[in-house]
Amino acid sequence: MTYCVAASVSAGIVFASDSRTNAGVDHVATFGKMHVFEIPGERVLILLSAGNLASTQSVITLLRERAREGVNAAKTMYEVATLVGSTIREIVERDGPALQQGNIDPGCSFVLGGQIAGEPPRLFDIYPQGNFIEANRDTPYFQIGETKYGKPIIDRVVKYDTALKDVAKCLLVSFDSTMRSNLSVGLPIDLLAYERDSLRITHRKRFGEGDAYFREMSTFWSAGLRKVFLEAPDLSWD
Amino acid sequence: MTYCVAASVSAGIVFASDSRTNAGVDHVATFGKMHVFEIPGERVLILLSAGNLASTQSVITLLRERAREGVNAAKTMYEVATLVGSTIREIVERDGPALQQGNIDPGCSFVLGGQIAGEPPRLFDIYPQGNFIEANRDTPYFQIGETKYGKPIIDRVVKYDTALKDVAKCLLVSFDSTMRSNLSVGLPIDLLAYERDSLRITHRKRFGEGDAYFREMSTFWSAGLRKVFLEAPDLSWD
Repeated sequence: MTYCVAASVSAGIVFASDSRTNAGVDHVATFGKMHVFEIPGERVLILLSAGNLASTQSVITLLRERAREGVNAAKTMYEVATLVGSTIREIVERDGPALQQGNIDPGCSFVLGGQIAGEPPRLFDIYPQGNFIEANRDTPYFQIGETKYGKPIIDRVVKYDTALKDVAKCLLVSFDSTMRSNLSVGLPIDLLAYERDSLRITHRKRFGEGDAYFREMSTFWSAGLRKVFLEAPDLSWD
Repeated sequence: MTYCVAASVSAGIVFASDSRTNAGVDHVATFGKMHVFEIPGERVLILLSAGNLASTQSVITLLRERAREGVNAAKTMYEVATLVGSTIREIVERDGPALQQGNIDPGCSFVLGGQIAGEPPRLFDIYPQGNFIEANRDTPYFQIGETKYGKPIIDRVVKYDTALKDVAKCLLVSFDSTMRSNLSVGLPIDLLAYERDSLRITHRKRFGEGDAYFREMSTFWSAGLRKVFLEAPDLSWD
């Protein structure tokens, strides 16, 4: 399984992804799901991937191989999204029939975000069919993979005017909730905060096993939740 | 959709269920999903239902019609669970072929809990196939329906020695998280706390729109979460 999330707010876009892949519980491995394309001063594109690992790797590889006339030449984020979508379709068309014979789903999906000079930052959710939607102020975030456990805290905290550092913290809390409930989502977590109009990667971090901050935050959050819970008004049955 | 949950702890069993059913977003209705069979002083059986509404209603109706030689005569909760399972199979066999022609899933599932004199309280998760598992100290709760949004808080709070009133509060918080994230789960919530060895229903309440306690708890929880979040250690990027 996978959990990836990105939230686009007024100050920029924060991305987070886990690194666990599995084909059955006895075939677990670590693969990062955050893919960065950067031409400093000109464009920053981040792709988060979920679904069939062979498919997502092929999509990313082809996007990189063809970057010069492809994602690096695209004039808008919308154009990049269509390139990702058409590459998904190409791979599913190529590999799908063989996989379907083994009842294996070739599908994959991506969250694409970033900024190209001349445009504001933009965030897209690209479906396995290659079509996509774009985030807006009312719906500023997208999740792919194992999305439900970590959704309530994002719904409560992330608004369009939330500070980038608070969005980043919230996404980590969201991962903490998800990892407690689903073993197939696991560390390390890749976190990247893109600052609007910076057109370069400035804040990126990987949280691995035993990361002091993640452990501290997780412990604080757990204790804090229990405290709020105990202080919450008691039920009366009358 | 549906959300039902029950947690079996040392002091008893707490049950909670929502009341929203829908066949498409334009066909939403209110049906309670908590079904009580009680012979005070002898047995208390509670069934929570999820899945195809026609199927769950038929199962409950047949269990009630046949109660005298059925659930009211069963000597153990295990025997009640097998009766529920065989009744599910009977209904799916009767209605399934017609439904499957319309690509409609006839499946339904139940959480069964309660106590029969001579046994301790017991809690079962009964699958659409009619087989079932029983809760134990390590895994004291079962959920059916839209289970994921409300799971993290239960995982953090409910242990085998948690007080009944805290379990009840926790299940309500779990509903609050679920209803914020999934419109198809809705009020009223039926809540029932069965006290071990009481062999009768003593604590039961329905929380409808505008219920003062539920609103207060929900507001307190939301504000408390935000406060813990803001106080949680800030991320440093170095």
